[in-house]
Amino acid sequence: MEMKLPGQEGFEASSAPRNIPSGELDSNPGPGTSPSPDGPSDTESKELGVPKDPLLFIQLNELLGWPQALEWRETGSSSASLLLDMGEMPPITLSTSTHLHHRWVLFEEKLEVAAGRWSAPHVPTLALPSLQKLRSLLAEGLVLLDCPAQSLLELVEQVTRVESLSPELRGQLQALLLQRPQHYNQTTGTRHCWGSTHPRKASDNEEAPLREQYQNPLRQKLPPGAEAGTVLAGELGFLAQPLGAFVRLRDPVVLGSLTEVSLPSRFFCLLLGPPMLGKGYHEMGRAAAVLLSDPQFQWSVRRASNLHDLLAALDAFLEEVTVLPPGRWDPTARIPPPKCLPSQHKRLPSQQREIRGPSGPRLTSAEDRHHHGPHAPSPELQRTGRLFGGLIQDVRRKAPWYPSDFLDALHLQCFSAVLYIYLATVTNAITFGGLLGDATDGAQGVLESFLGTAVAGAAFCLMAGQPLTILSSTGPVLVFERLLFSFSRDYSLDYLPFRLWVGIWVATFCLVLVATEASVLVRYFTRFTEEGFCALISLIFIYDAVGKMLNLTHTYPIQKPGSSAYGCLCQYPGPGGNDSQWIRTRPKDRDDIVSMDLGLINASLLPPPECTRQGGQPRGPGCHTVPDIAFFSLLLFLTSFFFAMALKCIKTSRFFPSVVRKGLSDFSSVLAILLGCGLDAFLGLATPKLMVPREFKPTLPGRGWLVSPFGTNPWWWSVAAALPALLLSILIFMDQQITAVILNRVEYRLQKGAGFHLDLFCVAVLMLLTSVLGLPWYVSATVISLAHMDSLRRESRACAPGELPNFLGIREQRLTGLVVFILTGASIFLAPVLKFIPMPVLYGIFLYMGVAALSSIQFTKRVKLLLMPAKHQPDLLLLRHVPLTRVHLFTAIQLVCLGLLWIIKSTPAAIIFPLMLLGLVGVRKALERVFSPQELLWLDELMPEEERSIPEKGLEPEHSFSGSDSEDSELMYQPKAPEINISVN
Amino acid sequence: MEMKLPGQEGFEASSAPRNIPSGELDSNPGPGTSPSPDGPSDTESKELGVPKDPLLFIQLNELLGWPQALEWRETGSSSASLLLDMGEMPPITLSTSTHLHHRWVLFEEKLEVAAGRWSAPHVPTLALPSLQKLRSLLAEGLVLLDCPAQSLLELVEQVTRVESLSPELRGQLQALLLQRPQHYNQTTGTRHCWGSTHPRKASDNEEAPLREQYQNPLRQKLPPGAEAGTVLAGELGFLAQPLGAFVRLRDPVVLGSLTEVSLPSRFFCLLLGPPMLGKGYHEMGRAAAVLLSDPQFQWSVRRASNLHDLLAALDAFLEEVTVLPPGRWDPTARIPPPKCLPSQHKRLPSQQREIRGPSGPRLTSAEDRHHHGPHAPSPELQRTGRLFGGLIQDVRRKAPWYPSDFLDALHLQCFSAVLYIYLATVTNAITFGGLLGDATDGAQGVLESFLGTAVAGAAFCLMAGQPLTILSSTGPVLVFERLLFSFSRDYSLDYLPFRLWVGIWVATFCLVLVATEASVLVRYFTRFTEEGFCALISLIFIYDAVGKMLNLTHTYPIQKPGSSAYGCLCQYPGPGGNDSQWIRTRPKDRDDIVSMDLGLINASLLPPPECTRQGGQPRGPGCHTVPDIAFFSLLLFLTSFFFAMALKCIKTSRFFPSVVRKGLSDFSSVLAILLGCGLDAFLGLATPKLMVPREFKPTLPGRGWLVSPFGTNPWWWSVAAALPALLLSILIFMDQQITAVILNRVEYRLQKGAGFHLDLFCVAVLMLLTSVLGLPWYVSATVISLAHMDSLRRESRACAPGELPNFLGIREQRLTGLVVFILTGASIFLAPVLKFIPMPVLYGIFLYMGVAALSSIQFTKRVKLLLMPAKHQPDLLLLRHVPLTRVHLFTAIQLVCLGLLWIIKSTPAAIIFPLMLLGLVGVRKALERVFSPQELLWLDELMPEEERSIPEKGLEPEHSFSGSDSEDSELMYQPKAPEINISVN
Repeated sequence: MEMKLPGQEGFEASSAPRNIPSGELDSNPGPGTSPSPDGPSDTESKELGVPKDPLLFIQLNELLGWPQALEWRETGSSSASLLLDMGEMPPITLSTSTHLHHRWVLFEEKLEVAAGRWSAPHVPTLALPSLQKLRSLLAEGLVLLDCPAQSLLELVEQVTRVESLSPELRGQLQALLLQRPQHYNQTTGTRHCWGSTHPRKASDNEEAPLREQYQNPLRQKLPPGAEAGTVLAGELGFLAQPLGAFVRLRDPVVLGSLTEVSLPSRFFCLLLGPPMLGKGYHEMGRAAAVLLSDPQFQWSVRRASNLHDLLAALDAFLEEVTVLPPGRWDPTARIPPPKCLPSQHKRLPSQQREIRGPSGPRLTSAEDRHHHGPHAPSPELQRTGRLFGGLIQDVRRKAPWYPSDFLDALHLQCFSAVLYIYLATVTNAITFGGLLGDATDGAQGVLESFLGTAVAGAAFCLMAGQPLTILSSTGPVLVFERLLFSFSRDYSLDYLPFRLWVGIWVATFCLVLVATEASVLVRYFTRFTEEGFCALISLIFIYDAVGKMLNLTHTYPIQKPGSSAYGCLCQYPGPGGNDSQWIRTRPKDRDDIVSMDLGLINASLLPPPECTRQGGQPRGPGCHTVPDIAFFSLLLFLTSFFFAMALKCIKTSRFFPSVVRKGLSDFSSVLAILLGCGLDAFLGLATPKLMVPREFKPTLPGRGWLVSPFGTNPWWWSVAAALPALLLSILIFMDQQITAVILNRVEYRLQKGAGFHLDLFCVAVLMLLTSVLGLPWYVSATVISLAHMDSLRRESRACAPGELPNFLGIREQRLTGLVVFILTGASIFLAPVLKFIPMPVLYGIFLYMGVAALSSIQFTKRVKLLLMPAKHQPDLLLLRHVPLTRVHLFTAIQLVCLGLLWIIKSTPAAIIFPLMLLGLVGVRKALERVFSPQELLWLDELMPEEERSIPEKGLEPEHSFSGSDSEDSELMYQPKAPEINISVN
Repeated sequence: MEMKLPGQEGFEASSAPRNIPSGELDSNPGPGTSPSPDGPSDTESKELGVPKDPLLFIQLNELLGWPQALEWRETGSSSASLLLDMGEMPPITLSTSTHLHHRWVLFEEKLEVAAGRWSAPHVPTLALPSLQKLRSLLAEGLVLLDCPAQSLLELVEQVTRVESLSPELRGQLQALLLQRPQHYNQTTGTRHCWGSTHPRKASDNEEAPLREQYQNPLRQKLPPGAEAGTVLAGELGFLAQPLGAFVRLRDPVVLGSLTEVSLPSRFFCLLLGPPMLGKGYHEMGRAAAVLLSDPQFQWSVRRASNLHDLLAALDAFLEEVTVLPPGRWDPTARIPPPKCLPSQHKRLPSQQREIRGPSGPRLTSAEDRHHHGPHAPSPELQRTGRLFGGLIQDVRRKAPWYPSDFLDALHLQCFSAVLYIYLATVTNAITFGGLLGDATDGAQGVLESFLGTAVAGAAFCLMAGQPLTILSSTGPVLVFERLLFSFSRDYSLDYLPFRLWVGIWVATFCLVLVATEASVLVRYFTRFTEEGFCALISLIFIYDAVGKMLNLTHTYPIQKPGSSAYGCLCQYPGPGGNDSQWIRTRPKDRDDIVSMDLGLINASLLPPPECTRQGGQPRGPGCHTVPDIAFFSLLLFLTSFFFAMALKCIKTSRFFPSVVRKGLSDFSSVLAILLGCGLDAFLGLATPKLMVPREFKPTLPGRGWLVSPFGTNPWWWSVAAALPALLLSILIFMDQQITAVILNRVEYRLQKGAGFHLDLFCVAVLMLLTSVLGLPWYVSATVISLAHMDSLRRESRACAPGELPNFLGIREQRLTGLVVFILTGASIFLAPVLKFIPMPVLYGIFLYMGVAALSSIQFTKRVKLLLMPAKHQPDLLLLRHVPLTRVHLFTAIQLVCLGLLWIIKSTPAAIIFPLMLLGLVGVRKALERVFSPQELLWLDELMPEEERSIPEKGLEPEHSFSGSDSEDSELMYQPKAPEINISVN
């Protein structure tokens, strides 16, 4: 069947192949290049500046016949009834109503007719024959490229001007095509059929898009400039031959109420024909729509100049399709959208390589994918070789950005970021302050914590190389301070003066490290070291939390049957003494009646506090036991721990809108603390509470804000302090630099560069300041800083159903951090409220931090593998590339290292544990003799020397070790490795 | 390229199309037919008796070239080197070693070369071009059907006898093909290369299969009679033209060490050719293997008589493949095997329809799929119209099976079933006994529970229509008995005699129900009724468990600061009385020293129990308070609840082998009770414990085993008891019959039929017996009976990787139940141990039962939907077919009904709640005015009248309401609805 339109060649001629404009070349700046601060820091505008093909919204309208004779009669005025006036026999496929049934942007959505809602987006599946039938229908049909039609009426007239149709049939067909389709109106929730089943002549009035089209919620999601493509498919009884037409409009035109969303239409595809077996035309229509939704096909067909190009694009599509065998996969099953789409780069032919697809999903480049280490080569970590060279370079690099660091904060998103980070910071200050006070007998405390956090944090935000960093008391520093305190107690030292000298030495050592550009050594800290570090600190947290909780059961012993808990009397001062007061209270108390019964003269059964109040003295072995506190504390501890864990998990549940879920999980610690306080206040038991001084003065009674340089210590301790200071310096260096590298990872697409040396310099200066004032020490905290960055993500808002939003970058500025710390400082007035927080609740949060940090590292995943039968193990990439026995061996070595560290930590020499942590680097080096570089690449990551030992391409694991298959997608489908919570907060 | 073998036509002629033997027709008995008990009750033999095509194991061996020149030199002795002696330049594809890389039974497994293990089975995905290339290679290549080769040598000689090969090349090729392939040996865990890289002449010795082939663990999985198919693919530098060959061996022959598992080979496919771009031959080889693993292609190719048939089969395969668009799906992603495979019935052409595919996956017929109601039409529920007609029919139906009911139990599986069900029964007896004792002030108790369970259960197993049923105290009966007890207390009745009369009346009413064949009315209990029933009982359980726990805090009050907990003295009998005893103990006790200090003469601070033991008397308001018990009880309660929940969840985790997981989750209650007891014993606190009499006599002191008919009650109460008995009869009828219908569902493929009337008759008789003896009342328990059936499942053992085992039926017999109850009876000697069980632990298990039952019903899922944004709702079938507002309306009506029931339950009229439950049937009837039958079909199920109102085909939801798509697979992918835990245990 040859359907030729008189003017067709003219259209084809007018659509000569356009040259690709040079602006279409992808100009996205690479991660290594440093953009100038003078240009617009917002890359959104750049990305929008690239003239890309607009996003295409495709819908399939189906011409549906009504099998019921009744329906048929209702549409008796249709001219089609003249042809098929068969009375009682229900006509099978005479079409009288157009329904929208499927739509596509990236994925397919199907209208669940009965339920009146759109299905979840899913990967479209097609039958091969329908694609082949479509190809032959298009090959024989009408192809109009760059059709100049300006309205639906013109378009329909063009499309129906085929020789095979009689004028009468043509009229019928036009009437049918012009009738309003029935769309499902999502806003009202019910199916609103605002199309009539009577075909009408299209008037100008009806060509105008309807209100419902504008109100469609999908419209808000689609980016500006999006175009529509419509496929009309159906079986028409009065047609003798199939009728296929493919139209590309020269100028996108809003075709009245044809599309669900009022968008200008670019493509129009008509697939009609006489009834055939099965769902032929429906499936052909779906095939056409899926083709149009394919980025590569879209690219080609937008540039096609004739039928040949169109068919070539279709054949190129067929070349690349994935085929599932019929016996092993049911074609009607819906496949959920994959987490990450295949890169379009690969699919595009060579001349298109440089151009990103129009609806191009997030490109997953090799750097993005293989990022399980902090030492992705960073230009900021190149050694200059000069004294303080790195620091000077950092200052030079950051200084030009300084004004923009404040201007870039002028965005609404920054407000919510401030609120979130402020609450997290305050929670941190309370928890760590409370725990520090607990560990140092009040040498530190909550007030110091608030003050120190505010001062140090704000100063860091103003000066640092990476102002997104949030300074906080971190786990390792807390553990060290606890050890330092017990050390100073062992030698009967005045703690704060001793601590001052430690701080002075640490600041000195850190300055030396800055001067020698030691930060570049951070590349020797591989995941092995980081995980050992994190696991040890987490275990100490868990151990301490449980230990402190159990300690409470010694303070408040559990009263077993037969114990002397009941033995307490209230002894009256002296026989015959202050009788009058005693007798005055007697009649009120049942106790005293008993006392009288028993012949007690100068004693009563009043409870101890009451007794003391009335001038008596509690006597007996049971007077100091407070019953029920131990178990109630345990309950509070468990409640706050499990509640925080549960809130954390709510983020991935299906309940509540995602905003609520995010809120609940972000504020899990705060909410858990509030719940614990509420429970405690409700029962009103005398649980141990957080110690808070009544006024604004240091927690330790009798000291001013400035620490005296020697106190009662001999002078030479100020020199001896260099030794623990060396250990603390190692710890601070490791903690600070690992965090800094994680924060400056390539995948966060930071534009203003990092400042490793400058950051360490600031930490050193603040170390000195906090030591002098007797405040806690502060280092960059990984988790809270990542949360800060996360709350400042810029993402593409408009996204198609089933697509994940595009990550554009982070609002890099100093203002949010600064405001957070000013607010923290202002929160010191909260102190009186804090004394209602029970300590067991803080211990529960402490446990939660340890468990959350421990469960975030890959080491824990590998330990879990030890317990899983091989058959049930998850399909991890490392299991595909490293034999299971080798994986287990690596895990076992890590466990042994951790065991050794734990043993050291349990001895009196515990304070040297930072040195042992550093020793992990040596162990890692020795592992090279046990494992091949390939195995280490998968299990850990490579040290600088090893990288050189493997040929260049060997660094991309997917190319070197994957055997014969390309496993790009497998890499992409792996869940992104969670960040290492080195700072446990 | 035409490759013709001289003798090829001869082979083709010898393989004339065989007629399908009539025995191949599927003779599996339908669920409605009643097989004769005289035949073999085991259907396995029948199923094996059908001559089916054997299962095919397919492997792809790849001829791998070594790109390194070094490797090339090592294989210098290969004759191929003569052709391509290129010195330094590494030859690209000269193949010198055959590796097995992929294998198929149902799904594809890939060898992870570096990790040395087989991947998880996954759905194979192909590229369309490789299928097309394969087609053209086969079309031009050599096709040998029914080749008479008896060894690999003969086969290779046949295959290489093509005209295009020179004799020299042929020799090289033969040598290559005869060399041993390198298999991965799974047993040793490491890659054991037992093939040499030097090609050898094949000798008879080498033709023998190797030890490793026999030891392959896959061999045990494959059923006897399985055959192998081998695809050899690769690129050979010395070939000028592609060489394709497809061989079907006349007789399956073990081809030496060619296959990984020593199986006789049926198919052999050779795909070789000169180097080409990409992984051409590898992918073609995979395509050939996937084709061979397709059941339909296998069916066709086993019967193909010439090349034309082969290509037709390939084309038929192509017609049915599912196509995924390249931009939306990455072809290298691995798709896990679907839970249920598409039915092969549909795919087979008409003449094959009746024959099940050889490796045919479990067929999911319409009855199997649409089973969300208990009233699937069952022949046992047809009304006879005669008095006791149903009962007589039941006895007639079951009597002939009686001997086999004992013989069929002779299987090892029955032992483990007995162990599992025994433990579950004993746990039940303890829990319900303890709770009944708690609720009836000791009128019932643990001893009664053990005795009654043993007597009633054993009797039921011997007489019942469905001997797989496990009788137990169920939730509804427990709730009713509690209400009955408080009713009798309100009227100051003697409980047990009153209860006897209630029992007598219930038995009478039940007999009337049996006589009138009332069991057929069970079809009016739709899911709406069942879920209302289950939800109410579960809520009562949860409420009671929490209530009882909180009651403990009244018995053991929490001591707030300032409370008089300390006020307790030990008063000595009289002044100057028994002084000597008193003084004797004095020096030992620190208490008494204090007492002396205080000037106490006739009093001391000894704790109350010690005081009583020494002849003193505790005096004071604090003497009866036991501290710490309240919170410790709460801890025990929460621990046992959460531990039981966690163990239940472990079943679906990845940890531990599945046997361990199943054990842990099956015995979750037992383990939780043991943990609670251990914790309690460890701390040794005086928590309230389970009351157990010291000897074998009723818990209520002073009564014999026979209940006196009147006791102290007026005679007319024996008549008045008919009223509560009526209510209990409703409850028992609902509980018993709903459980019975669930147990006799079609999908369990029971062969010996049900006995609804007989079961109710037995329950009535046992009701009488237990009332006379004062034992608890018993009804069929859903969950434990289902667990019993589940532990007696017969499943096909041999299954391919990725395939789920086939369900064959259930070992229907009376012996396991009987043994369980005999053991339960013998466990009465356990009674002395039971007094160590703390009551809070039992309350925790009680709570666990309620929560588990509540979470198992669809109603709960719909309530959860209320909290989920539409976007995050799971893709439930009912949401596809019913508008969300209608779903919510239905849920809201259920919630209102439940609220009303709860209000009634909270009033003094609580005892009439069974009548209200029955009222749910009326509410359901009224719902017909609100919802359309189609909506009710999805939300609930249809009542008998409604079924008639919908046309026949309308009863299959997938055919009537699914719009245009066939949603068979969608139905199948829905997780099977969990059973309704009506009995809450």
